[in-house]
Amino acid sequence: MIGLERMKRISRTSTSRIVFLVMDGVGGLPHSVTGKTELESARKPNLDRIARDSLCGLIDPVGPGITPGSAPGHLALFGYDPVKYDIGRGIVEALGIDLQLGPDDIAARGNFCTVGDRGIIADRRAGRISTARNAELCRLLNSIAINGAEISVIPVKEHRFVLILRGEALSPELADSDPQQAGLAPKKIEALSPRAERTAEIANQFVSQAGSRLKNEASTNMVLLRGFSRRPDIPSIPEIYKLKPAAIAAYPMYRGLAKLVGMEVLPTGESIEGQVESLCQHYGDYDFFFIHFKGTDSRGEDGNFEAKVQAIEELDSALASLLSLDPDVLIVTGDHSTPATLAMHSWHPVPFMLKSRWCRPDNVVEFSERACLAGGMGRFAATEIMPLAMANALKLDKFGA
Amino acid sequence: MIGLERMKRISRTSTSRIVFLVMDGVGGLPHSVTGKTELESARKPNLDRIARDSLCGLIDPVGPGITPGSAPGHLALFGYDPVKYDIGRGIVEALGIDLQLGPDDIAARGNFCTVGDRGIIADRRAGRISTARNAELCRLLNSIAINGAEISVIPVKEHRFVLILRGEALSPELADSDPQQAGLAPKKIEALSPRAERTAEIANQFVSQAGSRLKNEASTNMVLLRGFSRRPDIPSIPEIYKLKPAAIAAYPMYRGLAKLVGMEVLPTGESIEGQVESLCQHYGDYDFFFIHFKGTDSRGEDGNFEAKVQAIEELDSALASLLSLDPDVLIVTGDHSTPATLAMHSWHPVPFMLKSRWCRPDNVVEFSERACLAGGMGRFAATEIMPLAMANALKLDKFGA
Repeated sequence: MIGLERMKRISRTSTSRIVFLVMDGVGGLPHSVTGKTELESARKPNLDRIARDSLCGLIDPVGPGITPGSAPGHLALFGYDPVKYDIGRGIVEALGIDLQLGPDDIAARGNFCTVGDRGIIADRRAGRISTARNAELCRLLNSIAINGAEISVIPVKEHRFVLILRGEALSPELADSDPQQAGLAPKKIEALSPRAERTAEIANQFVSQAGSRLKNEASTNMVLLRGFSRRPDIPSIPEIYKLKPAAIAAYPMYRGLAKLVGMEVLPTGESIEGQVESLCQHYGDYDFFFIHFKGTDSRGEDGNFEAKVQAIEELDSALASLLSLDPDVLIVTGDHSTPATLAMHSWHPVPFMLKSRWCRPDNVVEFSERACLAGGMGRFAATEIMPLAMANALKLDKFGA
Repeated sequence: MIGLERMKRISRTSTSRIVFLVMDGVGGLPHSVTGKTELESARKPNLDRIARDSLCGLIDPVGPGITPGSAPGHLALFGYDPVKYDIGRGIVEALGIDLQLGPDDIAARGNFCTVGDRGIIADRRAGRISTARNAELCRLLNSIAINGAEISVIPVKEHRFVLILRGEALSPELADSDPQQAGLAPKKIEALSPRAERTAEIANQFVSQAGSRLKNEASTNMVLLRGFSRRPDIPSIPEIYKLKPAAIAAYPMYRGLAKLVGMEVLPTGESIEGQVESLCQHYGDYDFFFIHFKGTDSRGEDGNFEAKVQAIEELDSALASLLSLDPDVLIVTGDHSTPATLAMHSWHPVPFMLKSRWCRPDNVVEFSERACLAGGMGRFAATEIMPLAMANALKLDKFGA
């Protein structure tokens, strides 16, 4: 890794195009009966044909043993050290509902919850109230006024909301009020540094006024806050790589992440066919395309092995028209593994392939975990993908004289 | 590597158990006649069966080309950066005789030696005197009294002793008196920083008084000191990983190292059968077990290829009862290589395997240097083992949202 500052110095524009296809959670584990992973079980002639012509490997998004959330997983793919650019829970939640945040806005993830007589939390999720009910309660909280900060409360799904604090000289260095378990009282929000003391006061006033306004609301009589955070100060992809990047993602959170790193978000249908159609339509207008395929992760999290295999096959079918564009560089990988047998994100390294006229193909002829192990890249850090992509697009100058 | 501070935040307790079997010095080199390493020459059905179900690889304890001492080798296995947590020779020597050191105690490794008329060292090891004679001489030195420090001189084996300085505002930043070769005079002990000047004076007074008391002792008429050091300020395994760890080690030094990182040391017989018996007895009481097997290193250092092969086979036989416990995570590796052909610790990477329900097995079917090269982890840093162990034990939360 030469670092983003040095990447800026050696990046250059050219007419070549990079297509970066992220199969969310694509990595898997062997099925207990067949001994084959989801990728090994799928019929996927297009993916395997790409593997034949590609440089293959296995990526660690964060590091061995570390299970990435979606934000660090994607940041690593785009070349950002996910430990350095740590994105808070509040910001991720805000990205997830496509909120535009200013650089100084502070976001926190909120829950409506149920507290008993003595202020003890009985249910951290207020019985998972309906999203409609949530919207009503958020309207109630939006009338809260506090000196020194503008308050916005935006409903998410069920019991979840985002709190935005906007004002001068606020600081996100605050501890959570959410004790993360029932049977305890919500915690007073503490400043984690002296400069956050005023913000802590404001946040505590919000909680106290919210409590007053909700006190007759039975099961939704309190709020919990966690993950106070600000949009990270992150150099953009156009800045670092001199690329004109576009994102084709159906889910708001990935669109939000893409915007955060300076991508334009293209209109798209929700299916992978719709996404590839969007790619074909805008192919002349950008030189970098991030396509986010959600199906592999969703079916993996459901614990549905067969459905994840189907999702892979569905994507494979949609690849024909993508391949007809013959992109100068095509990358296929994932932001983490989501083995159906585990039914959650996992730490296992993720198969990777990069096809270009200038890649050095290895002997891998199948896109799968075990096959990619023998690839030319071996096991490597996800943050090294972008330099590799840029090099294969002939968009990087020599390093040093 | 996300760092130990972040590991603390994502570690959690659970009922799963990790067994970490360290075959000291297990890595080897090919025999000049057969072309096979010690591991490749041994009959070891249990180790090979574990490899079949495991994630395999080769670890670098410190880094390519670097031969680790026992302390850095083990620290790396337990997740500590061995370059950051540099443990001095004096401390290692003290751990080796199971000395309990306070956080401010300063330890140095001492040698009795022979000096000639003009103070020139004739023999750095005083003819390797008996341990009994050593104990007598140490009693003599223990009567030395110096203002500002309490002095303890504790005999080790043959010509070796440990000097402990205990007192207020002492500093271990001292150069050695031992010039590491005969034909030179012992050096005056220099302070390496201004705050160590008083300690340097104390140490030099000790050397001078020791010289007076030993002057009629013929071949043991002087002392040499090296490796002044203090117990490192090292976060413990319970702190970082929220584990309740136990060590089953027959040799004092490994017990000392285990205590240093917060493990409880269990009573055990000296043989590997005795060690496995201890594991079985205490299996319900801890969730992490470090088992240290010394035979492979000792026979390697002897330069006895056949005996090292036998040590591997002996360990393999003892594995049956260990395997009957069916630990949630089983790791087998070493702290460094000790090829019998070299007859010393070496820099060669060490075979590694990790078996768990959630590991992603590769195609390796044999526990050996060459076979593990094709493993799912490839070649990797030993410090990454602990995150991997914790992940496979499902004891780690997701990193980031």
